[in-house]
Amino acid sequence: MANVPHVVIVGGGFGGLFAARRLADEPVRVTVIDRQNYHLFQPLLYQVATAGLSGGDIAAPIRAVLAGKANVEVHLGDVTEVSLSSKTVALADGTSLAYDFLVLATGARHAYFGHPEWEQLAPGLKSLDDALEIRRRVLLAFEAAELEKDPVRQAALLTFVVVGGGPTGVELAGALAELSRYTVARDFRAIDPKRARVVLVEAGGRLLTAFDGKLSKGAEQELARLGVEVRLSTRVTDVTAEGVNLGTEPLPARTVLWAAGVEASALVKKLGAEHDRQGRVVVNPDLTIPGNGSVYAIGDAAHFAVEGGGMLPGLAPVAMQQGRHAAENILASLEGRPRRPFHYVDKGIMATVGRAAGLAQTRRLRLGGMLGWLAWLFVHLIFLIGFRNRLLVLIQWAWAYVTYQRSSRLIMGGVWRPGEPTVPEREQALLGRAPPRPAAEERPAERH
Amino acid sequence: MANVPHVVIVGGGFGGLFAARRLADEPVRVTVIDRQNYHLFQPLLYQVATAGLSGGDIAAPIRAVLAGKANVEVHLGDVTEVSLSSKTVALADGTSLAYDFLVLATGARHAYFGHPEWEQLAPGLKSLDDALEIRRRVLLAFEAAELEKDPVRQAALLTFVVVGGGPTGVELAGALAELSRYTVARDFRAIDPKRARVVLVEAGGRLLTAFDGKLSKGAEQELARLGVEVRLSTRVTDVTAEGVNLGTEPLPARTVLWAAGVEASALVKKLGAEHDRQGRVVVNPDLTIPGNGSVYAIGDAAHFAVEGGGMLPGLAPVAMQQGRHAAENILASLEGRPRRPFHYVDKGIMATVGRAAGLAQTRRLRLGGMLGWLAWLFVHLIFLIGFRNRLLVLIQWAWAYVTYQRSSRLIMGGVWRPGEPTVPEREQALLGRAPPRPAAEERPAERH
Repeated sequence: MANVPHVVIVGGGFGGLFAARRLADEPVRVTVIDRQNYHLFQPLLYQVATAGLSGGDIAAPIRAVLAGKANVEVHLGDVTEVSLSSKTVALADGTSLAYDFLVLATGARHAYFGHPEWEQLAPGLKSLDDALEIRRRVLLAFEAAELEKDPVRQAALLTFVVVGGGPTGVELAGALAELSRYTVARDFRAIDPKRARVVLVEAGGRLLTAFDGKLSKGAEQELARLGVEVRLSTRVTDVTAEGVNLGTEPLPARTVLWAAGVEASALVKKLGAEHDRQGRVVVNPDLTIPGNGSVYAIGDAAHFAVEGGGMLPGLAPVAMQQGRHAAENILASLEGRPRRPFHYVDKGIMATVGRAAGLAQTRRLRLGGMLGWLAWLFVHLIFLIGFRNRLLVLIQWAWAYVTYQRSSRLIMGGVWRPGEPTVPEREQALLGRAPPRPAAEERPAERH
Repeated sequence: MANVPHVVIVGGGFGGLFAARRLADEPVRVTVIDRQNYHLFQPLLYQVATAGLSGGDIAAPIRAVLAGKANVEVHLGDVTEVSLSSKTVALADGTSLAYDFLVLATGARHAYFGHPEWEQLAPGLKSLDDALEIRRRVLLAFEAAELEKDPVRQAALLTFVVVGGGPTGVELAGALAELSRYTVARDFRAIDPKRARVVLVEAGGRLLTAFDGKLSKGAEQELARLGVEVRLSTRVTDVTAEGVNLGTEPLPARTVLWAAGVEASALVKKLGAEHDRQGRVVVNPDLTIPGNGSVYAIGDAAHFAVEGGGMLPGLAPVAMQQGRHAAENILASLEGRPRRPFHYVDKGIMATVGRAAGLAQTRRLRLGGMLGWLAWLFVHLIFLIGFRNRLLVLIQWAWAYVTYQRSSRLIMGGVWRPGEPTVPEREQALLGRAPPRPAAEERPAERH
């Protein structure tokens, strides 16, 4: 095995896994490096954040996914640097790995538009740790409100602001509204969770701009029906321990969630190659990085320009197809064939709003409401990696659909002591007990 | 509601929940206080620790369990002190609650026989955080072994020591053996997980001393069949970063798990009432504490002497029956009837060894092997709180039984950097990233 070419894939998300699978049983040696031991089904992460699913339901060990591929190794580790000249990647533990071909599939983190200090106050939703932290804050807000005597502070505890009207923001806001109106409705004595405000703030003139205007209008109505206050053309100018400022209007809220922007991982920004404002490497049509025929960037790590302007969106199908394509181009190079340009086969886009309304849009089809939701459900179950998880998730959804119960309402990570007098102190105390995170240098927009 | 008697129940485990349920719709006001927002089905905690189940599968929000009981409130909080003279409990947030009747159902923690410093090195299994920490260490040990070049260190990484041959120790050892021999058997390239050693150390002359000698012999054989090395009549004299010492014999092991002893929570030890060596309050036959007719201690917080010597064991059925009985005695006091002594209805004891062998023992019945396992499965599913969880757990077990897969093999809580040179440093680094724990003053035998 030692003298076959070595393909190193950084990242076990959709792009990395599809690249590795395509290279299985080919005459190469493959190493998949990830900081986590699991692949995460990100499209359902908002369900974990809102207590609908457990982390285990949407994650599969990368080793298990690739166990049958004899030429694929999995390496739990943290790539800190790529040396294009020496063709090596350096790991945080001080070791390094040589590659013949490199696939960067390192994904994205949420970005705060030059305000990294907001992340503490308004967590985003990209990793399982993020989701558990959001779940923790949301559930603790209800607990604290139950014990709070001051009506002003109680109202702030029962106000949930979601920043960003893309699919993640819409899904989070819808799920939070259902959580408060149905799931925990009967659980408290001093508060009425149904009075909780869920505010969705979007800077643009409409939600879900990737979708047809009629569908996005439908989503807005569906959110309103669930009790979500949708604030369009509204910009968040500050995030504080007290809530958010919308221009000059303060909106007191103890829980603020961020779904307004992403940026590529620090690793690809440091490559020295041209990148866009979000740090994504601008790749060649064949997915290699400029001036280097053996290094690929795919998925959320890549800026792939499309004809007529713009770029491919950060969607799972894009990452999957690019992963497969990068693998095929590597095999072409090995066989002396020319690399082929990547063409995205657009399978459409989808989103969901609450428990029985969704949007699905392809070139020919526009589905809203219940039909859109069923399409969403079907596609997400099909793609959920691992059969067992699919079955379990289907059962949990069926159960949740019938009963409005959410199965994973656990506040994990130590004890919280409610009732301290001032909001900022309490916020700090809460933040101080957040679960440990990767080292700061690896994650650009992290807490400081 | 304000002028009906107030019953405060500290602890939402089996004892506390059964007391609260019995008091539902009676002419009392009930407050259940717990540090966690969920009830935990402790008998299946070892399944979470060995990646068979997710935390959500064995936990139910206390609020949800008690949502339909209008006279029962749930209070997320941390009781730090009981004042018998003023009939109040003090909470960590500085507030206090007055009670007319108090039920202490605060459970137990693992105890290290005067060696609190061992807890860092050999975590026990009592809470969900404990289980996730054990899962993390076990899965990381395989990952680190895969990357380790030194054969001696690699062997230590692949050695798992379980201290204590009671039900928890036997269940943990059996599940660890199965994890290594079946679940992750094909996942690694540099190591053969099947070579992992699982060593179960018991100071006494046989395992599962609560059971009939023939059954406990059968469990021993079943463990041997799974590849567990059972070391009877062997005392752990030290736990270090390198492993354990068994008298003069060092046993190098990177993962040591503690299942050798418990003690009652600090709260009941501070009561001033007589308690046994494990800190349990020695209760009157009616479950009240000596000299106080309105304060009850139940479950693992209580030492209930039985006729002919000894005490009732720390089992879920004991806690459930005592919870119900304490509630009935409170109602008796309110109605001017005398309190009745508690009599335990012995439903038997059970344990499981691996995936198809168990032990079940009642007065008349002794079941081992597959029959014992089926009995165990049946009883645990019946008692698992919440129908949805029961169904999900059954499916996961059925799936695991057929495929040997374990569904929750996630390493959570930040990034780990494998490959540092020295074992103790690495151990410390790992420990430093353990999930946050309750404040030290609340948990006697905690890390220092």
